[in-house]
Amino acid sequence: MSEKRTELSKLGEFGLIERIKSKFSVSQPTTLLGIGDDAAIIAASDDVKLLSTDMLLEGVHFDLSYMPLQHLGYKSVAVNVSDIAAMNGTPEQITVAIAISNRFSMEAVDALFEGIHAACTNYKVDLVGGDTTSSVSGLVISVTVLGRAKKDEVVKRSGAQLNDIICVTGDLGAAYLGLQVLEREKEVFLSNPDMQPDLEKYEYLVGRQLRPEARMDIIHELREKECVPTSMIDVSDGLASELLHLGKESNVGIKIFEDKVPIDNGAFDTAIEFKLDPITCALNGGEDYELLFTIKPSDYEKIKNHPDIHFIGHIHNDPTQHVMVTKQETMVPITAQGWNHFKE
Amino acid sequence: MSEKRTELSKLGEFGLIERIKSKFSVSQPTTLLGIGDDAAIIAASDDVKLLSTDMLLEGVHFDLSYMPLQHLGYKSVAVNVSDIAAMNGTPEQITVAIAISNRFSMEAVDALFEGIHAACTNYKVDLVGGDTTSSVSGLVISVTVLGRAKKDEVVKRSGAQLNDIICVTGDLGAAYLGLQVLEREKEVFLSNPDMQPDLEKYEYLVGRQLRPEARMDIIHELREKECVPTSMIDVSDGLASELLHLGKESNVGIKIFEDKVPIDNGAFDTAIEFKLDPITCALNGGEDYELLFTIKPSDYEKIKNHPDIHFIGHIHNDPTQHVMVTKQETMVPITAQGWNHFKE
Repeated sequence: MSEKRTELSKLGEFGLIERIKSKFSVSQPTTLLGIGDDAAIIAASDDVKLLSTDMLLEGVHFDLSYMPLQHLGYKSVAVNVSDIAAMNGTPEQITVAIAISNRFSMEAVDALFEGIHAACTNYKVDLVGGDTTSSVSGLVISVTVLGRAKKDEVVKRSGAQLNDIICVTGDLGAAYLGLQVLEREKEVFLSNPDMQPDLEKYEYLVGRQLRPEARMDIIHELREKECVPTSMIDVSDGLASELLHLGKESNVGIKIFEDKVPIDNGAFDTAIEFKLDPITCALNGGEDYELLFTIKPSDYEKIKNHPDIHFIGHIHNDPTQHVMVTKQETMVPITAQGWNHFKE
Repeated sequence: MSEKRTELSKLGEFGLIERIKSKFSVSQPTTLLGIGDDAAIIAASDDVKLLSTDMLLEGVHFDLSYMPLQHLGYKSVAVNVSDIAAMNGTPEQITVAIAISNRFSMEAVDALFEGIHAACTNYKVDLVGGDTTSSVSGLVISVTVLGRAKKDEVVKRSGAQLNDIICVTGDLGAAYLGLQVLEREKEVFLSNPDMQPDLEKYEYLVGRQLRPEARMDIIHELREKECVPTSMIDVSDGLASELLHLGKESNVGIKIFEDKVPIDNGAFDTAIEFKLDPITCALNGGEDYELLFTIKPSDYEKIKNHPDIHFIGHIHNDPTQHVMVTKQETMVPITAQGWNHFKE
């Protein structure tokens, strides 16, 4: 079985840009001019614009030995869309800057942009520009997203008030456990390349790691129910770290209950299998890209029956006290292990 | 002489973000919320928004053995501002994503952001967000710029018309020759580390390479003179490559005159010293970040006396003919060597 391999040097930078451009069309009415000039042109309006950037590096954020390029492309867009969702906004345009080495073929770049295209279609965002360059080492993808929101509906990290209810969507810790599974399978494969990995049992966890979704569905549903969160953040570094951000920026105290933190059953079992504490995975795992937000108590009725929104605690007055009530009814301080990228 | 070195691991990612945040203030009235939330919030208006991204990689776009980090920071902003200038827009906000390895100290990151800060101050743009992450190899900087323009004054690459006059600012080829000088001095230094480089004679050329300026001054002056170019592009890949872009996007033919192409005297002499053809350096050198634009013949009177705008040719009707009239009055086709990043 031989796969077609077209060298990037045959295509050149402008050829590559043309190739990418030909595959992306425009869907947002605010996109007046997309790829192909010095900058994209975007119509402004009475709304405010939201701007965010995330960079993913090979060897730091992903391992191509188990991350398919399509998924990587999809994820690089989803994590940026998630930042706009966390402001209660609607993403509209993205730019994508990539650095790739010669070890990638044109077909590999196509696969990456297939994933980017799938995410653009799913989230209804337009790819309007970017940069393509060579890399002397690993693959780098930097995505910037521009979004829109009504000025009085933008939700910052700083708006949580006394007695607000703390909500989180979906479930937590699964993306981190998916990564543990992938790392283990990689070790097994390296020591015995004939061994085929059996990932079926872990399909949900692995999917959470490789192809996360931004929760734009929740944003749309909250709008329908006329529920505007008082503060919001997306769970990229882990629940604990994000809770501390909300507490600090809003200058309030956080109290959550361990038994309310949503953990998928398979994630729970896999944590035990890996001799990890499930709640620690949920608190510090990261990369779930769920939404963590606070609502006024008076808004509780509007969303209390939503199957994918969980009410995990509330806001209290003392900004120095961020605590979790355990299943044993003891209080433990919430501490962020998060990720220190700069530690060796 | 010992320099202070604070490890990034001591600071952590959030500590680093806090440190950067504390050094940048906001100057644009459209910046409603800067660094510190999931996305920046930017006021919209009746104008259109312009969005552009450029990524710089160590070992590809810069060599830290002769590129001071302050200059690198400055340049990474300037090349993005240049893209907004090339749309006849005004830059307002930037995001900066950086990937850095542990071999950089906090002081090194400070130096990088000093340069970014100097550029932000000079071009009156606000740093409103970004991403900081670790790199397992070289330094990566990806800057995205958001700008503003009046909708009917945006200048694309596609508006050049028959008989329009082709203009270019400043001088060309010097940045490329500055790079040749720096590469040669590096070789000398590597073979004899006691040798101090003597760059004084080449100060202008080296400065053009290390610390280019975006020509926002020209944009402001064109506005004052009520001269709106019909098409425009910034000279990043080289004059020839940019001329072909204008010709192609506008579907017109290009005719320029060799003796009108502006080349600095020192650049001319240095080209000869390096056994290079000065006009080839000007046509294919790149990284000058000057503006190449076309004007209606009726606008010529408005800017004919500008000391830094040069009239190098005109637009004709045949989009298959892009030619330069040499000093010997022969016609040669304009071909772009440009840069093929993917060639080894």
